[in-house]
Amino acid sequence: MTDIERAVTNSLTFYEKLNDSQKRTIADNAILKRLKQGYNVHSSSEECTGLIIVRSGELRVYMLSEDGREITLYRLFENDVCVLSASCVLDSITFDVFIDAEEDSEVLIVNSKTVNEIANENIYAKCFMLKQATERFSEVMWVMQQILFFKADRRVAIFLIDEMNKTKSTVLNLTHDKIAKYIGSAREVVSRILKYFERDKIVKLQRGGVEILDKAALMKMI
Amino acid sequence: MTDIERAVTNSLTFYEKLNDSQKRTIADNAILKRLKQGYNVHSSSEECTGLIIVRSGELRVYMLSEDGREITLYRLFENDVCVLSASCVLDSITFDVFIDAEEDSEVLIVNSKTVNEIANENIYAKCFMLKQATERFSEVMWVMQQILFFKADRRVAIFLIDEMNKTKSTVLNLTHDKIAKYIGSAREVVSRILKYFERDKIVKLQRGGVEILDKAALMKMI
Repeated sequence: MTDIERAVTNSLTFYEKLNDSQKRTIADNAILKRLKQGYNVHSSSEECTGLIIVRSGELRVYMLSEDGREITLYRLFENDVCVLSASCVLDSITFDVFIDAEEDSEVLIVNSKTVNEIANENIYAKCFMLKQATERFSEVMWVMQQILFFKADRRVAIFLIDEMNKTKSTVLNLTHDKIAKYIGSAREVVSRILKYFERDKIVKLQRGGVEILDKAALMKMI
Repeated sequence: MTDIERAVTNSLTFYEKLNDSQKRTIADNAILKRLKQGYNVHSSSEECTGLIIVRSGELRVYMLSEDGREITLYRLFENDVCVLSASCVLDSITFDVFIDAEEDSEVLIVNSKTVNEIANENIYAKCFMLKQATERFSEVMWVMQQILFFKADRRVAIFLIDEMNKTKSTVLNLTHDKIAKYIGSAREVVSRILKYFERDKIVKLQRGGVEILDKAALMKMI
């Protein structure tokens, strides 16, 4: 097994479902590329770079905001696969992203013609690509929520610190609904933020209340 | 063929790939529900409503922003299918949305247990769900871009009107790069916005310039 075949097998989980000719097509059309740190491997102007498999290093997928700020959507590491750079293959993807090498990286690129051919012939290949895209969807929603909820994060943090100081207790007997009313937000938003805080071990949610575990982390937010 | 079977066949394009027992399972587990306008059919607290097929009316899928504002992600009309309400089935979806009836609507709901069973047994069913999710991904990216680019939209519109007034011409000989420098944005952002404007027939892009087709539409933006 060549190096390229090994990399393809590791990353493309549908590989074993391909017939020999399809396997050969992929291996023959995977081009190894070394990217210097900062190199832009895909941009919205080149619409179809193809499938990118990361062999080593790190890539960053981002959008540009209105003021030219880069909004990082997600990062790609060893064995990760990027399908958004082959968006022409998935006709359901109609937006563009930029992809840069964050470090010196080595990638395999399977051109979109090949990817398209295989995806049309093999339902498992197609399903794999859609699954990759759907996973990225979740990551992008996370970023979007961060952008949308950022200010409320801060407001909840300020509120929790104030209450803690007021009551001299790390356990606050307040429902999410009550907190939402105090800070002028919606209950669902407060619940979401508290869930994030809990994930980060900043608070512990209890029936009808919130326990503060990490005041320092809250202080950092305000 | 019953009414429910007809609705399922129309919306679930993988239906013909199912065996008879799978078909029966879906038909037997699709529950018809009439929703009054404004009814919340799915929220982040009930994590797995199931697959929703719209028979009539209109549903709206949204997120809540930091200040409790609703950010509409997309709408669903007759025969449309929503898989985000069955996110537990697609382990790659890890975020929550809200779904309300925008009008009095009639929907079929296939519970997640059933959907999960079929998706695990049948690759076409799974692929269908992933494809639905990926299509929604594109719609959500559009919304995200609108949020991120909104201010720049306005700035580009103001700039084009100013230039048109200044030069007394609807044809502006300015590259995207130049416009970006004038309004303090990035070339990619300006290009993206001009592409949106072109799609909406507000401008026509030419080599090294922009022709304004619809000044009224630009005026409305500022």
